[in-house]
Amino acid sequence: MKMWGGRFEKEPEDGFFSFTSSLGFDVRLYSYDIKCTGAWVVALAHAGVLTADEEMAVTRALEQVKEEIEAGSFELFPTDEDIHTAIERRVEEITGASGGKIRTGRSRNDQVATDTRLFVMDHCQDVAALIRTLQKTILEKARETSDLPVPGHTHLQQAQPVLLAHLLLAFVFMLERDVKRLQSVREGADSMPLGSGAMAGTTIPVDREELAFLCGFSRPSQNSADAVSDRDFVCEMLFTLSLLMVHLSRLAEQIILWCSAEFGLAELDDAWATGSSLMPQKKNPDGPELVRGKTGRVMGSLVSILTVLKALPLTYNRDLQEDKEPLFDAVDTVIGCLKLLEGTVSTMKFNREKADELLSCSFITATDLADFLVEKGMEFPRAHEVVGKLVSFCIKEGRTVDELSLPELTTFSELFDENAYGWMSVEASLDRRGSLGGTSPGAVSQQISNAERMVSGSEGPL
Amino acid sequence: MKMWGGRFEKEPEDGFFSFTSSLGFDVRLYSYDIKCTGAWVVALAHAGVLTADEEMAVTRALEQVKEEIEAGSFELFPTDEDIHTAIERRVEEITGASGGKIRTGRSRNDQVATDTRLFVMDHCQDVAALIRTLQKTILEKARETSDLPVPGHTHLQQAQPVLLAHLLLAFVFMLERDVKRLQSVREGADSMPLGSGAMAGTTIPVDREELAFLCGFSRPSQNSADAVSDRDFVCEMLFTLSLLMVHLSRLAEQIILWCSAEFGLAELDDAWATGSSLMPQKKNPDGPELVRGKTGRVMGSLVSILTVLKALPLTYNRDLQEDKEPLFDAVDTVIGCLKLLEGTVSTMKFNREKADELLSCSFITATDLADFLVEKGMEFPRAHEVVGKLVSFCIKEGRTVDELSLPELTTFSELFDENAYGWMSVEASLDRRGSLGGTSPGAVSQQISNAERMVSGSEGPL
Amino acid sequence: MKMWGGRFEKEPEDGFFSFTSSLGFDVRLYSYDIKCTGAWVVALAHAGVLTADEEMAVTRALEQVKEEIEAGSFELFPTDEDIHTAIERRVEEITGASGGKIRTGRSRNDQVATDTRLFVMDHCQDVAALIRTLQKTILEKARETSDLPVPGHTHLQQAQPVLLAHLLLAFVFMLERDVKRLQSVREGADSMPLGSGAMAGTTIPVDREELAFLCGFSRPSQNSADAVSDRDFVCEMLFTLSLLMVHLSRLAEQIILWCSAEFGLAELDDAWATGSSLMPQKKNPDGPELVRGKTGRVMGSLVSILTVLKALPLTYNRDLQEDKEPLFDAVDTVIGCLKLLEGTVSTMKFNREKADELLSCSFITATDLADFLVEKGMEFPRAHEVVGKLVSFCIKEGRTVDELSLPELTTFSELFDENAYGWMSVEASLDRRGSLGGTSPGAVSQQISNAERMVSGSEGPL
Amino acid sequence: MKMWGGRFEKEPEDGFFSFTSSLGFDVRLYSYDIKCTGAWVVALAHAGVLTADEEMAVTRALEQVKEEIEAGSFELFPTDEDIHTAIERRVEEITGASGGKIRTGRSRNDQVATDTRLFVMDHCQDVAALIRTLQKTILEKARETSDLPVPGHTHLQQAQPVLLAHLLLAFVFMLERDVKRLQSVREGADSMPLGSGAMAGTTIPVDREELAFLCGFSRPSQNSADAVSDRDFVCEMLFTLSLLMVHLSRLAEQIILWCSAEFGLAELDDAWATGSSLMPQKKNPDGPELVRGKTGRVMGSLVSILTVLKALPLTYNRDLQEDKEPLFDAVDTVIGCLKLLEGTVSTMKFNREKADELLSCSFITATDLADFLVEKGMEFPRAHEVVGKLVSFCIKEGRTVDELSLPELTTFSELFDENAYGWMSVEASLDRRGSLGGTSPGAVSQQISNAERMVSGSEGPL
Repeated sequence: MKMWGGRFEKEPEDGFFSFTSSLGFDVRLYSYDIKCTGAWVVALAHAGVLTADEEMAVTRALEQVKEEIEAGSFELFPTDEDIHTAIERRVEEITGASGGKIRTGRSRNDQVATDTRLFVMDHCQDVAALIRTLQKTILEKARETSDLPVPGHTHLQQAQPVLLAHLLLAFVFMLERDVKRLQSVREGADSMPLGSGAMAGTTIPVDREELAFLCGFSRPSQNSADAVSDRDFVCEMLFTLSLLMVHLSRLAEQIILWCSAEFGLAELDDAWATGSSLMPQKKNPDGPELVRGKTGRVMGSLVSILTVLKALPLTYNRDLQEDKEPLFDAVDTVIGCLKLLEGTVSTMKFNREKADELLSCSFITATDLADFLVEKGMEFPRAHEVVGKLVSFCIKEGRTVDELSLPELTTFSELFDENAYGWMSVEASLDRRGSLGGTSPGAVSQQISNAERMVSGSEGPL
Repeated sequence: MKMWGGRFEKEPEDGFFSFTSSLGFDVRLYSYDIKCTGAWVVALAHAGVLTADEEMAVTRALEQVKEEIEAGSFELFPTDEDIHTAIERRVEEITGASGGKIRTGRSRNDQVATDTRLFVMDHCQDVAALIRTLQKTILEKARETSDLPVPGHTHLQQAQPVLLAHLLLAFVFMLERDVKRLQSVREGADSMPLGSGAMAGTTIPVDREELAFLCGFSRPSQNSADAVSDRDFVCEMLFTLSLLMVHLSRLAEQIILWCSAEFGLAELDDAWATGSSLMPQKKNPDGPELVRGKTGRVMGSLVSILTVLKALPLTYNRDLQEDKEPLFDAVDTVIGCLKLLEGTVSTMKFNREKADELLSCSFITATDLADFLVEKGMEFPRAHEVVGKLVSFCIKEGRTVDELSLPELTTFSELFDENAYGWMSVEASLDRRGSLGGTSPGAVSQQISNAERMVSGSEGPL
Repeated sequence: MKMWGGRFEKEPEDGFFSFTSSLGFDVRLYSYDIKCTGAWVVALAHAGVLTADEEMAVTRALEQVKEEIEAGSFELFPTDEDIHTAIERRVEEITGASGGKIRTGRSRNDQVATDTRLFVMDHCQDVAALIRTLQKTILEKARETSDLPVPGHTHLQQAQPVLLAHLLLAFVFMLERDVKRLQSVREGADSMPLGSGAMAGTTIPVDREELAFLCGFSRPSQNSADAVSDRDFVCEMLFTLSLLMVHLSRLAEQIILWCSAEFGLAELDDAWATGSSLMPQKKNPDGPELVRGKTGRVMGSLVSILTVLKALPLTYNRDLQEDKEPLFDAVDTVIGCLKLLEGTVSTMKFNREKADELLSCSFITATDLADFLVEKGMEFPRAHEVVGKLVSFCIKEGRTVDELSLPELTTFSELFDENAYGWMSVEASLDRRGSLGGTSPGAVSQQISNAERMVSGSEGPL
Repeated sequence: MKMWGGRFEKEPEDGFFSFTSSLGFDVRLYSYDIKCTGAWVVALAHAGVLTADEEMAVTRALEQVKEEIEAGSFELFPTDEDIHTAIERRVEEITGASGGKIRTGRSRNDQVATDTRLFVMDHCQDVAALIRTLQKTILEKARETSDLPVPGHTHLQQAQPVLLAHLLLAFVFMLERDVKRLQSVREGADSMPLGSGAMAGTTIPVDREELAFLCGFSRPSQNSADAVSDRDFVCEMLFTLSLLMVHLSRLAEQIILWCSAEFGLAELDDAWATGSSLMPQKKNPDGPELVRGKTGRVMGSLVSILTVLKALPLTYNRDLQEDKEPLFDAVDTVIGCLKLLEGTVSTMKFNREKADELLSCSFITATDLADFLVEKGMEFPRAHEVVGKLVSFCIKEGRTVDELSLPELTTFSELFDENAYGWMSVEASLDRRGSLGGTSPGAVSQQISNAERMVSGSEGPL
């Protein structure tokens, strides 16, 4: 069934019709479309367009359609063009002619905008819940490793010792911003277009506040020309998912580095790694690699929707149909990646021996040695210079700083004394970084507590 | 002055040093860097690192540096590497050796993140204020045209009559979402990294809550490894500006279409249009065209920063320096475009005769005719079919529907009567769309009032 | 069947395995994989790894696999991981243990790179052939309209008269560049990775020149570490398809504008247009709108693959699996759009009356009037100024230039005489632009001939 | 001087004029504009528009303008709008009124397209020459390291031993494709728009073949409406530079990894690395990090131009002005990155001891052990399984395979004998990969020779 045709003298070409049809993907919106159609039926009844009997018949037909779809017995016809048409066609089959009345006063333009918003609102919650699960998993690992010092890097060069937990917490706080953004996306999507008609508003005197409530929205949209072509909520969702994927790609990169033989800090569980068809010894972090790669995919979807919208004249244009596939794909991709990383992180093991080894042969506490000189009264820039020369000397000699004798140290600065050796220990270095957000055991413990409070809560994330 | 070197045996190559230097663009952050350095000095004094005299001397030197920069007498040296170094170097020149102490316990990693956040927070407000100005200008035009019907389009095909004000209001509500998003960006940026050191936290026992207050933030960041590499706020800003540009490109497209000879609904003021070097008759909408084009530029900046961040390992990596130029360029571009459109819209004239002409020779009230039949008891799908055939007949005959006689009308449906002609008038069509957000004079008037309330307020947008 | 496992103590998690499996989409490469496996079998036989009997048995099995896949009787198991595994598994089932030998000396890393290149090479030709068809269709329309003047626009403002054919030819030449680029893409893809093993080269002494020939390539790759991770050819394909889509979006935009009531220059055939579910009079250019929208989608795929590749260390990383879905989607999208536009253009009608009307009430030959003054000896900048003032005068008076009397004209410049009226005619204006590439009937006719030669040729485009 | 105004009653607003002005950046095209204007003057003289004296006077004036610009004495006025106007204004100042004639028959639309093409053609060569320099530098390093085995990685997991030279060669061949693409870009740009006027062709009977020759092109464009709005060559350039940057980002990533303490395979020269303001021991690979980051920037420019062009109606639209800044920025960025990497690679040192160490404690020749079993008659899938179990056993025991006794080995397969130990050596592993493109010393030596031939040649790369 097509919803139009009176003005046309020919049927659409097959190739053309299938090119423009969205039924292949928008079937996914069925439950939202049924929900909003049900609300519309109530509004039509209140406005006198449907009798009480018709209202009841159509409502029952909608329930039946939903059951048929979920049972897999609903037949989609190639002529159905989109899910809105398919549902309306079936309602008409079930109820007889009165079913056609549900189309009165609305348009697929306001319908699809409404359905897609509900999809986004729902999936903000689903994604946020999965982020929470991942955060909790990382937090558990952080608790396990809150006594394990590892080299912290800047520029991928060893910088200062940190607790591994401290690094893991970075991801927990990073992901928290994604949860917040999903909340904003949800709020932005929560405005109902239904009742905007094709673009000029509806002729049916519906109470759109009530309609919004019935559809599951907090408020109706305020301008019909804007409402039918507004896809800001899709852009926001795709941006938010893109940035979430950027974060996941950073976590993935970290796991890949840690699992390399050279870093050697972590090992994946056998159930979450992959082998090679050629090299028998390989155990590859394919999961994190795919997460890293799929970041490009979600970013591509964001570029796609922004490009679609650029310079689009008012109001609805068919280009807008291209909002759904990138949206659906991005949501599915993100959900898959979150689950994958949750499984990967929850089962990975850290290697304490390797951590010790990496810390023992490095100059990673050089800053602390400079701090020692500052403590003794030297200004920091001068202390930085002195320790720099000391490190340079050691590199040439092939020694570490703590292997130098005190007389050797004092050739670089007379302020050095026996206590300098204590300042160079990893433990002392960690302890000194106790201010809010720092890597001392106390500060990290505080972060863990804060983060646990942050990610818990009985009502769900949004 | 370089801030490092003790460990190195050679000076950096000139070409290398100039490639990595950010001084050419980060000088723009000078006021934020001075503000935060001033706050850091207080914190160092509270922590006992600076004496009261030193604190006073350095604070005065910072004031002097600011004055020198703003007077244009501050000299940047090629060796200064970045604005942080330049300011520190100058403070040291002014105060003598004690100036070097201001580097104690902090790093350019936490400094630059802090400065850039303040830049974003400030510019969210600037951009939001300019949006408000543009909204008000559009609203004035909407008030002027709240009695002017024009063809409303979907698919760039004439769809239903609307008030021009109704279309203009679409942009006012669209832009309101941008203001809301800027508010979210500002809130997201409002978290102070200072005190995170290079990545492991600072060794100075500073009160970071107080430090945040002094720098102009509501709160300090919670994890130092995250804080120095978090650029979410830059991504959010660039996304928000990209979507704003998408909206401006849609407004620009509408203006370009309206100003074409074929649409002929609007004319730009001579002071806001451009001529051709070849064709003497031309009056081109170069401003809106450039706005449309610059949308690509801002989107490019968004892609740029997301690509930079993808798969970056913890913590700070020099790639992050590539956040500033796209950010600065996008902010400048958006500000230019907002001002341009404000001037363009405030001075453009609408053509009432052309609007009448376009409405008079079209089938733009065909939906209303179908509604008439529904009113008479026909179901909508059938009414749609009947009117479709009627339109098809008229096209072949080269007539409009209201030129048909009643007997002619009734050959299509016996339900037609004399009242049908009234339903076809533009005025009646508008009047019938009186529900919330619709295009009836009453509904539009309500929207104007709501929008006026929305965009006013004494305290500024954010 | 997994191709690995000896080193692992657990089976992969179901969720993990399905997340990493590529079988859902890379099944599309089956024919290329079978072809290359067949070639590899020959190479293994030549190298003595397979006996002649084994070679024959495996080759027959490969044929059988192909038949089974094409008949739809081939069963893919969830455990098959990818199409390479599935084919190898089935060959082993058919031939017994010796089938396993086909994995000797190769890796899925070199296999998949080889298969994907063959896919790209094939589809360059398919896409180029469809471009040729569209070019021919546009050329036919150009021949039909080579006597039809229409307003030419710059800045969407009427600029100078042109033949409609001249505008249509712009698209023919534009698309020719796409054909050329596809040819480059094909040449770039034509380098065989097979024999690169996992990344270090194969241990089997195969003649890779011969192997390349058997697989359908002109040459083997030159460095195994590069060969397994090189996806330049995918990037080139996606860029080329993106730029092609940009061109198609411009053609689509032109059609949408021409079909608007306001321009009114063209009408779509009923079989290639769509109606509205609400507005009975609507005939929407949904096809071109979707083409315009799908431009974003293909561009998104380009961004996706570039982002995937950015900063990937040598050599193969699993991120590379993310090359296929965007590639397949882009190819399918482009093919659909080319067919859609071919059908749309071949059936659309142009409206000569509207073209006349648009030309008659404009200042579109103002440049010619300036040229007249130049011909009379005035310098162009001065002539431009004079005609500009004349146009300004007419606009205020509400007249066109040719409605002015000669005495009126001469108040603007004494150089005007009776001949000026002739210079203002559309025909004269067209005629004067006879240089190569111009819009005079002669020049356009020449372009049509050149273009017809360009797009013909018996051997296909590439 | 503006080139228009007669039709306008007001001067442009200052803010508007400066927003639309391109003089700030298109001044960079001055030499191309002067060259093409010189050629146009010849064409005008041949067509009788200029006398011989005028031709000579204008030509001399153009020379003078060029000298003034290069001497820094040319004054750009804010009113100059763009470089075309500035040059024409100055020519007119120098020559008197006749200078104004150079505008006859051309438009800034065809001028700017012509100038920008010449810019691209020139810079293809500049960039290609710098790539060649980098290739030669990498090749020198390859020659130095053609006897140095290192672990080869897939999935960042140690995979098989390779010569370091083999990895370096991967980049040489990768970059060769960039040179090829630049050649294609240059050929694509080599088509002259001049003589297309605003969009309809020029009225001056110029010989455009001759004009093309004088401007430095091989051929004129074929359709004026296409020619003034074709920016394919900008897109191609930006894509080619983006893909080049992707390659450079991969080289940068490799250097960053190699320079980490954990990999430890390479060390940057002190003159090409940077220190930390806080941590005295740091030596950071800031150069490669910035290259990696700047990849996003160039990709952003590509997205920008494609977005600008999407759905642009024929012909010239002012949006096209947005082609130049991304183009210029991308060219400058790429040139900077190529020079940086050349300096970085030419001075970096490799660490042979660390390479030995990494190879000695790994299972990197496990594939060779499987090959040994295949050689003894086992099928590869079974051999893979056996060696996999062997590796698993060793990991649990904390031993390497070559530490196992023969009796231990034979518990895994009876086919093992004394020769198995020889197969496990790195040297034997390398030697066995001698087919074209493989990592054996012979194959690598052959690649070096081929690459040296490839990158040499007296005539420059394009």
